[in-house]
Amino acid sequence: MKLSNLGESGLLALIRDWTPSSPPVRVGVGDDAAVLEIGDDLDLVVSTDAFVEDVHFRVGVLRADEIGHRAMAGALSDLAAMGAEGRAAFIGLHLPSDTSIDFVRDLYRGLDRVASPVGVQVAGGDTVRGHLALDITAIGTAPRGQSLLRSGAREGDRLFVSGTLGRSEAGRRLISGEVRTDVPQRSRREAEAAHRAPQPRFDVARLLTGLSSPDGDPPVRPTAMIDVSDGLALDLHRLCEASGVGCRVEEESVPVDEAAKCIALSEGRDASSLAFEGGEDYELLFTMRRQHEEILDEAARHAGIVVAPIGEITAREAGTVIMRRGGAREELPAAGWDHFDPRG
Amino acid sequence: MKLSNLGESGLLALIRDWTPSSPPVRVGVGDDAAVLEIGDDLDLVVSTDAFVEDVHFRVGVLRADEIGHRAMAGALSDLAAMGAEGRAAFIGLHLPSDTSIDFVRDLYRGLDRVASPVGVQVAGGDTVRGHLALDITAIGTAPRGQSLLRSGAREGDRLFVSGTLGRSEAGRRLISGEVRTDVPQRSRREAEAAHRAPQPRFDVARLLTGLSSPDGDPPVRPTAMIDVSDGLALDLHRLCEASGVGCRVEEESVPVDEAAKCIALSEGRDASSLAFEGGEDYELLFTMRRQHEEILDEAARHAGIVVAPIGEITAREAGTVIMRRGGAREELPAAGWDHFDPRG
Repeated sequence: MKLSNLGESGLLALIRDWTPSSPPVRVGVGDDAAVLEIGDDLDLVVSTDAFVEDVHFRVGVLRADEIGHRAMAGALSDLAAMGAEGRAAFIGLHLPSDTSIDFVRDLYRGLDRVASPVGVQVAGGDTVRGHLALDITAIGTAPRGQSLLRSGAREGDRLFVSGTLGRSEAGRRLISGEVRTDVPQRSRREAEAAHRAPQPRFDVARLLTGLSSPDGDPPVRPTAMIDVSDGLALDLHRLCEASGVGCRVEEESVPVDEAAKCIALSEGRDASSLAFEGGEDYELLFTMRRQHEEILDEAARHAGIVVAPIGEITAREAGTVIMRRGGAREELPAAGWDHFDPRG
Repeated sequence: MKLSNLGESGLLALIRDWTPSSPPVRVGVGDDAAVLEIGDDLDLVVSTDAFVEDVHFRVGVLRADEIGHRAMAGALSDLAAMGAEGRAAFIGLHLPSDTSIDFVRDLYRGLDRVASPVGVQVAGGDTVRGHLALDITAIGTAPRGQSLLRSGAREGDRLFVSGTLGRSEAGRRLISGEVRTDVPQRSRREAEAAHRAPQPRFDVARLLTGLSSPDGDPPVRPTAMIDVSDGLALDLHRLCEASGVGCRVEEESVPVDEAAKCIALSEGRDASSLAFEGGEDYELLFTMRRQHEEILDEAARHAGIVVAPIGEITAREAGTVIMRRGGAREELPAAGWDHFDPRG
């Protein structure tokens, strides 16, 4: 059997079988990042992301610094999604022999522009001749046992997402010129900027790991979290599958980017389409116990951070459901970005 | 300027300039691995290695499990060279869409065949469509401050190497069929096995970090260490440059593989040529204070591990010198494997 038939999620399931975990690896293949219990009081949180020319980016459409920026944002977003603080990143850099030094310098500037402000250093890597690609392994830490996994959501939990979805995909289409829809100037600028220079949401993660309540039992923190890197639909399915639950999402509650709405409507599709299918928004999708919603609301408002309740966690048997604006109840397909999909 | 003019070491020097280190990164770009001071009592030792089809290996010449095996051996060798114990590895896997699942499974078997026996787990990674390549980031630990760097060699130290050099390069040439020299059966088998299934020398590293003397002052341990991954000549230059010293190597003391000798002589070159220029032996090259040579000798003999004294560390001004068998004194060129060299 070939990878093109199996798909990325099928391959991932096999790799998970081939690589069972035992201490000090507490979480291995399958979450946003791995968790290693090393030393006395820390979880070491580690994530690897590969970015390949003509799969993840096109030279000419994006500048070298933007390519570096986007790659680092994607890699660090996985640490934010674990509630970890980033520490260091390691770059496997594949470069054609005729690459200019200026291009490589700008790539590193882009990497650093995301890494430095959140306390992450590029501390090593390897360079090799090859098809242009960056493999970034990001290392972070969390207090022992406090990493936020995908697997802790329970029936009755509320479902939230930070920021605005579909924006990066809208930006990608506008930059590449493949859509010529009339999009308001400001929305266009926001979408293009989101695609060129996405930000890992450590601000959101810090808000969520720093919540507290008067009694503190159960702890006020997300029960599960994942970053929205491959579209809300696919990442919702991943969170639900890892937690062994279902969910019900209210379409009208999903925060959809303005440009993404314009583009979707111009194609005769639902306004929320790009939010569900578009990738690389790097917002955080998380669940919290219902009784903590008010604490979250107040803390978010105080911090000036936008998080939206978009639905709730249900029993696994109820499936992954979207309640359409008109009231229709539909199964949400697990559709998003698949790197081995022949359409990709 | 293009990479092909600058070369790998030139690029590395630039990247080092672009990525200055500050705490918790104690050692950044430039050694075998980076050292992070994370937690209270450990050094986190991290190394990234990229392995790319048609640069590092050829499908058809090596089986999938051998490709995985060699990649993991190369990655873990950097941890051994730091005197660290390996803990976990992360794989950025670039695969053409028409890759068979069996190929990927065998690749993982090869990775695990090297990793498991030395206590390393494959704990994560990423898969992406692309030109066949593996980027491995290996994570290990050492007691705080005990990582063995390239930079500690001092004038008067003795220089040692483990095992036998030139063997992997001899094996590569025999397997690929590019040499048809008459090589004794047993030497041929050993060389081919060394190329197909190299072993990171954690056994040597553990011997060296476990030495002790009655008084223990100064500590009995290597003053500098590096793995011989790109040929003795180039890796010697790297160690000397990092330490700010020169060295004098006795050609007749260098342990050269039998098959490598046969091949070099059949080409009308010095018997030791492949030891100096061939890559991927993954033996350890290290320096120790002269007064510790006897302790090392006895411990190595007791452990059944072969280490050979091959010369000594001199002042930087004396250069990197090889004393030929006939008594001639020559500068040792920094020639070895360069991934951006157009000949590569």
